Amino acid sequence: MVVVLSADRVTEALVDLRALSAELYDLGRIAEVLGWDQETMMPAAGVAARAQQQATIQGIYHERLTGPHVRDAIARLRDAADAPFLSDVDRGLIRTMAREFDRAIKVPTALVRELAEATSTAMPAWQRARAEAQFSIFRDPLGRILDLKKQVARCVGGSENLYDSLLDEYEPGASTATLRTLFDALRARTIALLDRLRGSSDPPSRAAIEQQYDVEAQWAFGADVVKWLGFSFDAGRIDRSTHPFCVHFSPEDVRLTTRVAPNNLAQLLFGNMHEAGHGLYEQGIGADVRRSAIGSGVSLGVHESQSRLFENFIGRGLPFWIFAVPRLRERFPAQLADATPESIWRAVNVVAPGFIRVEADEVTYNLHIILRFEIERRFFAGDLSVDDLPDAWREASRDLLSILPGTDDLGVLQDIHWAFGLVGYFPTYTLGNVYAAQIWHVLGRDIRDRDARIERGEFEPILRWLRERIHRHGGTFEPEDLIARATGERPDARHLVSYLEDKFARVYRLA
Amino acid sequence: MVVVLSADRVTEALVDLRALSAELYDLGRIAEVLGWDQETMMPAAGVAARAQQQATIQGIYHERLTGPHVRDAIARLRDAADAPFLSDVDRGLIRTMAREFDRAIKVPTALVRELAEATSTAMPAWQRARAEAQFSIFRDPLGRILDLKKQVARCVGGSENLYDSLLDEYEPGASTATLRTLFDALRARTIALLDRLRGSSDPPSRAAIEQQYDVEAQWAFGADVVKWLGFSFDAGRIDRSTHPFCVHFSPEDVRLTTRVAPNNLAQLLFGNMHEAGHGLYEQGIGADVRRSAIGSGVSLGVHESQSRLFENFIGRGLPFWIFAVPRLRERFPAQLADATPESIWRAVNVVAPGFIRVEADEVTYNLHIILRFEIERRFFAGDLSVDDLPDAWREASRDLLSILPGTDDLGVLQDIHWAFGLVGYFPTYTLGNVYAAQIWHVLGRDIRDRDARIERGEFEPILRWLRERIHRHGGTFEPEDLIARATGERPDARHLVSYLEDKFARVYRLA
Repeated sequence: MVVVLSADRVTEALVDLRALSAELYDLGRIAEVLGWDQETMMPAAGVAARAQQQATIQGIYHERLTGPHVRDAIARLRDAADAPFLSDVDRGLIRTMAREFDRAIKVPTALVRELAEATSTAMPAWQRARAEAQFSIFRDPLGRILDLKKQVARCVGGSENLYDSLLDEYEPGASTATLRTLFDALRARTIALLDRLRGSSDPPSRAAIEQQYDVEAQWAFGADVVKWLGFSFDAGRIDRSTHPFCVHFSPEDVRLTTRVAPNNLAQLLFGNMHEAGHGLYEQGIGADVRRSAIGSGVSLGVHESQSRLFENFIGRGLPFWIFAVPRLRERFPAQLADATPESIWRAVNVVAPGFIRVEADEVTYNLHIILRFEIERRFFAGDLSVDDLPDAWREASRDLLSILPGTDDLGVLQDIHWAFGLVGYFPTYTLGNVYAAQIWHVLGRDIRDRDARIERGEFEPILRWLRERIHRHGGTFEPEDLIARATGERPDARHLVSYLEDKFARVYRLA
Repeated sequence: MVVVLSADRVTEALVDLRALSAELYDLGRIAEVLGWDQETMMPAAGVAARAQQQATIQGIYHERLTGPHVRDAIARLRDAADAPFLSDVDRGLIRTMAREFDRAIKVPTALVRELAEATSTAMPAWQRARAEAQFSIFRDPLGRILDLKKQVARCVGGSENLYDSLLDEYEPGASTATLRTLFDALRARTIALLDRLRGSSDPPSRAAIEQQYDVEAQWAFGADVVKWLGFSFDAGRIDRSTHPFCVHFSPEDVRLTTRVAPNNLAQLLFGNMHEAGHGLYEQGIGADVRRSAIGSGVSLGVHESQSRLFENFIGRGLPFWIFAVPRLRERFPAQLADATPESIWRAVNVVAPGFIRVEADEVTYNLHIILRFEIERRFFAGDLSVDDLPDAWREASRDLLSILPGTDDLGVLQDIHWAFGLVGYFPTYTLGNVYAAQIWHVLGRDIRDRDARIERGEFEPILRWLRERIHRHGGTFEPEDLIARATGERPDARHLVSYLEDKFARVYRLA
């Protein structure tokens, strides 16, 4: 018997799914409001009650996601995904809701709770371990988390490639195989580039941006920059927090946070441009996908492509500084008396292999990510045990960055991610760079006077291009498909390689 | 057959009820976070999505309140309310949850929705009507709201006394009969007092506080005052908003908002003390009632008693200004060069009958409330129609305040409450004054050096008394019972009458 899916029945199920997805979207956004308030506004003593409020809202989210209504709607639609009368948006919604439902159903509540419990005890252990540079303090909590993540991976994807199931959570469709292809191409060329930069007879210095800069004047300039890039303050705001982040409550309410250092202009400025990139993506979500499971940026990798594009491809480019230096000098005449666009551009592009990922430059950054990817991959392939991690980190650091961390706080203990249970997350940072370079390349072909426009402070054509090709689609397409549609080819690291080689040869004045 | 309620079965049901109540409390607090953010932080364009988030969270609240779990727990406990093994807290929780459940069940969802729709269309009509001083614009929307409120009252309490059912929503246990007794006592003596004040040969003037005061310096002083009174900034904060309010997310996270006028010290200062009174109540909620249906202030009237006590009985008292004037002068030496505690005290206690309730002094304020109470009472008794309201307002204004509003924006159109559907709400303001005066009287008997302490800035004994007698109980006792337990007698207006007569004879230097 052939089951005929009538358009009417499918449409009816879609109406249900949209309503259920809208409610889940609201619940997710409400949890984000609670989180934003906690990081920016909440008085210290409010923390216990806020944790209960979060547990309540997230419990209700899970209950409704896994409840009979979502189950029924998805069951009625699963086989319709290829029906010709469905739009891309419909298909994207069905695919995304089904994936979220499957993940929520496949992982038992007891395992979710155990993981939550494990991460909440791992956090203080990680903090203490890092402060004392003692891996032994973090060893058991980390082992427990990694073991639980193995169980999660098995529940979600079976036993074949555990790491793929973890990657897929942050970057739908990503796999160990495709990442290895991208990262291998990047690795050798980056190490070769580093060698060439070491040979420069005229390397740049950071001195110009590492002066005393009044924090209020920095704040005002940072807000100007975000406005230039196109971020709407009618539909968003910026506040201070310990760690910069971007969160959205709707495309019309996007909150950025940032931090400011009195002796380093780069912290606020590139922090703002980075978060503005995330924020512009969310402000650009299209009307046809809003308030649904596909009403946000599609993945961490694509999100990161937008933040890196604004932070690095625009913000660390010479055209930007041709526009910005005269304006920056108005606020800081003493510090910038001798500055030129080129001198500031070179100052913000110093390359120096270091131990700490979050302080890394554009060139070495990807090596930090490849290091983590390789370690996670080998661990989940069974080639490394928890006890092997510190040494594996040291060896990889020597191989990739040619430096050897003397203590584990500069090595395996430096990142908070694993303590949070974020395993398989790191690769999305470099995926973002790969996507951004490919977008930047095509964008420069489509907007032939792109750099001249930036020199005049005209960022609107770039934003318009991104809105049309990336932002408005939300989660309609899988990340790789979205990039392929936007740029005309599947993700390929060669654009990032040539961008880095060309740019840094100029910054370092190589022949 | 006698049904024996075993302690075990009751305890089991109580455990269920507490868990359900905790979840509802969380959902209610989450809605408050959304509301606070909207009033203080949210960018303008966020309003539509925020309305959807509010509708989602409130829909879930209603669904769970009226769902089978709450229904079952209450059914198992309703007959146990008098069981001797129950604590006051248990009884309070059962009573409060049962009342909330009954109200939610008795009022059909269609009626709730119709009322929400009616108020949302009434709001802009009211705004336009007030701006143009044309009652006719508001007449139909108001008529619809009052009609729907009649239906609500019938659903909740039957047809006997409709107005009582409305009063009970804001002040559990309040009735037309008890309010008439309180208000009649107040009315005649207040009008007589106003006559005597008119005969003063040395009335005070507001000039000293109506000078230019730098708003940042005001803000800092206003925060000092709130701290003096005992408000914890580890468990709360103050922000700006168009209309001052206080909201709590837990006893450890209480948010005040206020506004500041450059040419009037009173706005920020008394606004802060008023909201601090509300905030201190919520910060003082006891550990045994937290995170439950009785984990907040018990009623609007008792809440208002705390805000009025700090704003008026403390803040508009001479002892406070003996402490505050030297400190205020440090911030505003020019404006306060000639000020004495007595001159400022007199300046903040000018009595002048006016049209607008929110600008009224302590003496005439209650007449504004009695006016509204009488009009609402007569409307719901069938003695007034919607068309009668403007004239009824004018007549009552003439009788009570001896002034006749020439236009309806100064009369029946001045308050937003009815457009919000808040009918039966106004009396709680004067109930707050009645309760506050009674508390203040007993507090002065229990703390014999109360005024001397205030003169030294020692507010802690007052706060300790309030915490013990009022705050910690939350909603354990009905409002009147709480006041009776705290003060040793049922609510009686004579304390408010003598307080006003004694104080204003001194302010106006009557013989």
